[in-house]
Amino acid sequence: MTTWNQKQQRKAQKLAKACDSGFDKYVPHERIIALLETVIDRGDRVCLEGNNQKQADFLSKSLSSCNPDIVNGLHIVQSVLALPSHIDVFERGIASKVDFSFAGPQSLRLAQLVQAQKITIGAIHTYLELYGRYFIDLTPNVALITAHAADKRGNLYTGANTEDTPAIVEATTFKSGIVIAQVNEIVDELPRVDIPSDWVDYYTQSPKHNYIEPLFTRDPAQITEIQILMAMMAIKGIYAPYKINRLNHGIGFDTAAIELLLPTYAESLGLKGEICTHWALNPHPTLIPAIESGFIHSVHSFGSEVGMENYVKARSDVFFTGADGSMRSNRAFSQTAGLYACDLFIGSTLQIDLQGNSSTATADRIAGFGGAPNMGSDPHGRRHASYAYMKAGREAVDGSPIKGRKLVVQMVETYREHMQSVFVNELDAFKLQQKMGADLPPIMIYGDDVTHIVTEEGIANLLLCRTPDEREQAIRGVAGYTPIGLGRDDTMVARLRERKVIQRPEDLGINPMHATRDLLAAKSVKDLVRWSDRLYEPPSRFRNW
Amino acid sequence: MTTWNQKQQRKAQKLAKACDSGFDKYVPHERIIALLETVIDRGDRVCLEGNNQKQADFLSKSLSSCNPDIVNGLHIVQSVLALPSHIDVFERGIASKVDFSFAGPQSLRLAQLVQAQKITIGAIHTYLELYGRYFIDLTPNVALITAHAADKRGNLYTGANTEDTPAIVEATTFKSGIVIAQVNEIVDELPRVDIPSDWVDYYTQSPKHNYIEPLFTRDPAQITEIQILMAMMAIKGIYAPYKINRLNHGIGFDTAAIELLLPTYAESLGLKGEICTHWALNPHPTLIPAIESGFIHSVHSFGSEVGMENYVKARSDVFFTGADGSMRSNRAFSQTAGLYACDLFIGSTLQIDLQGNSSTATADRIAGFGGAPNMGSDPHGRRHASYAYMKAGREAVDGSPIKGRKLVVQMVETYREHMQSVFVNELDAFKLQQKMGADLPPIMIYGDDVTHIVTEEGIANLLLCRTPDEREQAIRGVAGYTPIGLGRDDTMVARLRERKVIQRPEDLGINPMHATRDLLAAKSVKDLVRWSDRLYEPPSRFRNW
Repeated sequence: MTTWNQKQQRKAQKLAKACDSGFDKYVPHERIIALLETVIDRGDRVCLEGNNQKQADFLSKSLSSCNPDIVNGLHIVQSVLALPSHIDVFERGIASKVDFSFAGPQSLRLAQLVQAQKITIGAIHTYLELYGRYFIDLTPNVALITAHAADKRGNLYTGANTEDTPAIVEATTFKSGIVIAQVNEIVDELPRVDIPSDWVDYYTQSPKHNYIEPLFTRDPAQITEIQILMAMMAIKGIYAPYKINRLNHGIGFDTAAIELLLPTYAESLGLKGEICTHWALNPHPTLIPAIESGFIHSVHSFGSEVGMENYVKARSDVFFTGADGSMRSNRAFSQTAGLYACDLFIGSTLQIDLQGNSSTATADRIAGFGGAPNMGSDPHGRRHASYAYMKAGREAVDGSPIKGRKLVVQMVETYREHMQSVFVNELDAFKLQQKMGADLPPIMIYGDDVTHIVTEEGIANLLLCRTPDEREQAIRGVAGYTPIGLGRDDTMVARLRERKVIQRPEDLGINPMHATRDLLAAKSVKDLVRWSDRLYEPPSRFRNW
Repeated sequence: MTTWNQKQQRKAQKLAKACDSGFDKYVPHERIIALLETVIDRGDRVCLEGNNQKQADFLSKSLSSCNPDIVNGLHIVQSVLALPSHIDVFERGIASKVDFSFAGPQSLRLAQLVQAQKITIGAIHTYLELYGRYFIDLTPNVALITAHAADKRGNLYTGANTEDTPAIVEATTFKSGIVIAQVNEIVDELPRVDIPSDWVDYYTQSPKHNYIEPLFTRDPAQITEIQILMAMMAIKGIYAPYKINRLNHGIGFDTAAIELLLPTYAESLGLKGEICTHWALNPHPTLIPAIESGFIHSVHSFGSEVGMENYVKARSDVFFTGADGSMRSNRAFSQTAGLYACDLFIGSTLQIDLQGNSSTATADRIAGFGGAPNMGSDPHGRRHASYAYMKAGREAVDGSPIKGRKLVVQMVETYREHMQSVFVNELDAFKLQQKMGADLPPIMIYGDDVTHIVTEEGIANLLLCRTPDEREQAIRGVAGYTPIGLGRDDTMVARLRERKVIQRPEDLGINPMHATRDLLAAKSVKDLVRWSDRLYEPPSRFRNW
C-alpha cells in the first residue's frame, strides 16, 4: 500500500530524534549546530533567510559549521547570497546546489565556485519568482529564519523587517518542513505576532542581534549636478505628463535626486498632489522631505531601513505599521504591488545595448537582479487602467490600444566610473552567459519593456519608435559622447527630436544652469535628520557630526 | 502642527465608540449591524471577503441591512461580486463605488446598476492586481472577513479555505484599518492559527456556516468524446514535446478531460513522471486518479474544494497542509506561483478573434476574469529557464532567444452552445467596452500571449507564425466549419501544416476513433470516490446514488 504522508512521517521522525537528544522548542544557541545535524537530512532543500537587509546570520554560520560528513548534498534555495557563510557551505561540501535571486556581495566568490565546479546553479530568479517556486517545485524541507523577538511559546515578532519571512515560513511549514528561527530577544509579551508559534518548530536566541544592512540610505551630499539635471528631466518630462502617482524607485543616487527634488522643483511646477502620492518602496531616508511636505500619501515597503524606525512609527498615516507602531514590511506583497499596482519603475543600470536591453551583470561576477526584472517589466496580466497606463499604451501603438503600458525608465549617465560607456554594442551579460553555461543571458530589463531612457543629454521615448532602426537611433540620440552616441545618424536624430521621441533639456524648458545642488530639499544626512524632526537616526557611518 | 497618525486616531475613536456601546472583541451576531454602523464611516473603503469559493455571507448580508442614512458612500474593494447582498449594498445606497475582479453570478445585475448609474466601477482587476492595490492606493479601512473558527482570544483558523484572507487582513490591519471576522465555530483550542488574534478587532459567530461553492467539481459523466480528442491532442501535441511539468489548468470540462487522461492515455505514452508533476491548482476531484497513479507530486491551491477535505488530509505529500491535516490554501501565493513558477496555463474561452485575443465577456454582462489574465500571460519578469520555457522561446524567434516563453493555451470547441462560433471577427468585449465606457476592452488573454489554440480540428502553434497574416491563417486553420474557419486560405493553411504550425490529429498520430470515454480514468463522480478510497465526499448535487 502506498504511503501518502511520507513527508509528515519524515518530519515526525526528525522531531522525535531531536526530542530524544533533549531538544525542546527553545534551543540554547550553543546547541544549534547539534540541532541542525539532527533535523537536516542529506540532500534536503534548505532555505537560509537573508535578503538585501536582514540576515539569519547566526543560523547561516551554524549551518556552515556543521560536520559535512553528517550534513551534505544540500540544495540551498534562498533569496540572497550575501554573507561569507552563505558561500562557506558550498566550499565545505555541506551544500552542492543553489537556486537564488541575488548575490551582490558574494558574486565574485560564487563565480569562482562555479569555475571550480563546487556548486551547481539551478537558476537565478527574481524574488517573487523564487517565492512562487517555493510553492511549486522548490519547497524547502528546512527553513532557517530570523525574527526580532519570540515569546515563550515561540510566536515570532519580526519588527520592521518582516521582509521574506511569511513567504518562506508558509511554504515550509505547510509542506511538512521544519522551521527554525533565530531571534534577538525572548520576551514575555510580543508587541505583535507576525508568525504564529504553531508555524515554528524551534527557536533560539542568537548571541548577537541579526545583521541588518542599511542598503537604501543615500547621502544627499554625494548627489551631483548631473544627477539633479536628470532628475529634473524625469520629473518634468515623464512624471508630470504621465501624471505618475503609483511608482517604485530603484536604489541609487539618480532616483534619490528625484526624491529630494519633489518638495522643491516639483512643487514649483505645481505638481504636489499630482504626482508621486503612492509608493512601493523601502523607507528611503531621502523620502523624508517629500513626506514632510505632504507630497507622499502612502508607502508600502519590501523591508525597513536602519535608522528609520522611529520616523516610520511617527508617520503611520504614510507607512504600514502594526498596533505597536513598528513597520510591517512584506517583500512578497510589495513586489506584487510593484508589478501590478504601480504605473512606473525607474532605476539605473550598468549597460544598455542598442535594442534597449540593460544589465548590471559583468563578465566575472554572478550577481542576479533581486526584484528589478519584476518591477521593470510590463505586466500583461494587468487589467486596470490609469492615466499613465493609457497614455503610454496609446503612444506604443498607432491605432487604438487594447492594453496600456507600464512605464519602465532607465536613468543613467552616459559614462560611469572609470570612463566606461553605459551604452554598448553587446552587453557583458552575453559573455557571462557563456562562462556560466546558462540558458539565457542575465538581462535585467528587456528592451521591449523599457519605455524611456534618461541621460544627461535628454530623454528617449522608446514607445514612440515605430521601427527597430528608430529605436536604435533614439538610444544613440541620448548616448552623449560615447562611441554609441557618436555613431548616431544626425538627420534621423533631428527628426526624432522633432517628433519628441528625443527631448533635450531645452525642449522641456529646463535650463541646465539651474540644475544646482540648491534644488535639493536636503543637502546632507544631517539635513534629513532635521527634516524628520530628529526622528531619523542614521547609522554611524552616515554621520560626520 | 501636522498630525501624522490621523488613521490611527480615527481607528482609536471608532474602537472607543464601539466600546462605549458595549462591544467587546467577541460580538454576538444579533449586534453585528449595530457594530458596522458604529465602526464604518461614510465613504470608507470596505473589503467584503468573498471569492470563487468561500463568502463572508453573514457580514455581507449584515452590511446590506445597515441604515443607509448612517452608512453610505462606501467604496467596495473586493475580489468577487457573487452574492445578491454584494449588489444590494449598491441598490440600497450604502455603497457607491466598486473595484473588483470577478462578478460571475451577479454580472447581469451589475451591468444594470451601471446602466442605472447607481454604481461607479473603478476598475476590473485580476486577483493579484487587486491585492497589489490593497497595499498601494486601495487599502481597505474596514475588512469583513470569514474564517472557520476562532478561539476565545480571537485567533482565527481558516481551515482549508484560507484563500484571500491573509492578503486582505494584512493590508487592512497594518494601515490602521478595522478587521471584523465571522466564524462558524468558537473553540477552546484551534487546530492551528492562520491569522493571529492581534490582527483581528472583532469576531462573531455567524448563525449559519459560511457559504462555500463547489466551483471546481466537474462530473466526468459529462465529458464528451470531442473533449477527449482535444485532451489527447493537448497531451501528445503540447505537454509531451514541451515536457510540461509545472502548470495550471483553467476550470472546465476540457481541462478535466486532460486530468482524467493522465493515468490512461498519458501513461500509455510513457509520460508518467515526465509531465504534470507540479501544480498550482485547486484540489479538483478529477485530479484524484492522476494523484493515486503517482503522476502528481505536488499541488498548491488558491482555495479548497467542497468534499475534498479528507482526501487532501490523507495525501499530505501532495497538498500543502497544516499540522492539523487540513489544507492551507493561499490565493495570493498560488497566483504568484501560477504567474512565475508555471510553464503552462491552459483554459477555455467563449470567443477568440483573428489576432488571437480571447474573452469570456458578453455584451450585457460585466463579469471580469479573476485570475485567468494573470496565469494566461507571459511574465517578462521571469528569469529562470526550463525545458518548456526555452523551447517555446526558441520557437518564438528566428535567432537565438534572449528570453523564454510561457505556454498559454486556449482549448475550445469551434462551436459552443446554441451553435455560436467561438471564432469571431470582433470580440463582444469591444461592444461591452463601449457600453461600460471603459478605457480598455475586457480581453481575458491578449493574442500576443497565446501560444497555442487547440480545437477538435487540430493545434495551431502561434509561436511559429512569422507574420500577422500567418497568425490569422493559423487561427482560421483550426476554426473548423465556423465562418472564420471557412474563410481560410487553403494553400497557406496547407503550407502552415507542412511547417507544423498547424497539426491535425493524424499529424500527431492520433486516431479520432480512439477518442472514446473508455480512456477516462473515471467516468463518473462515483468512480472518483472509488479512486479516492472513499475519502472524497462529493456534495449531494453531484451524487446520484
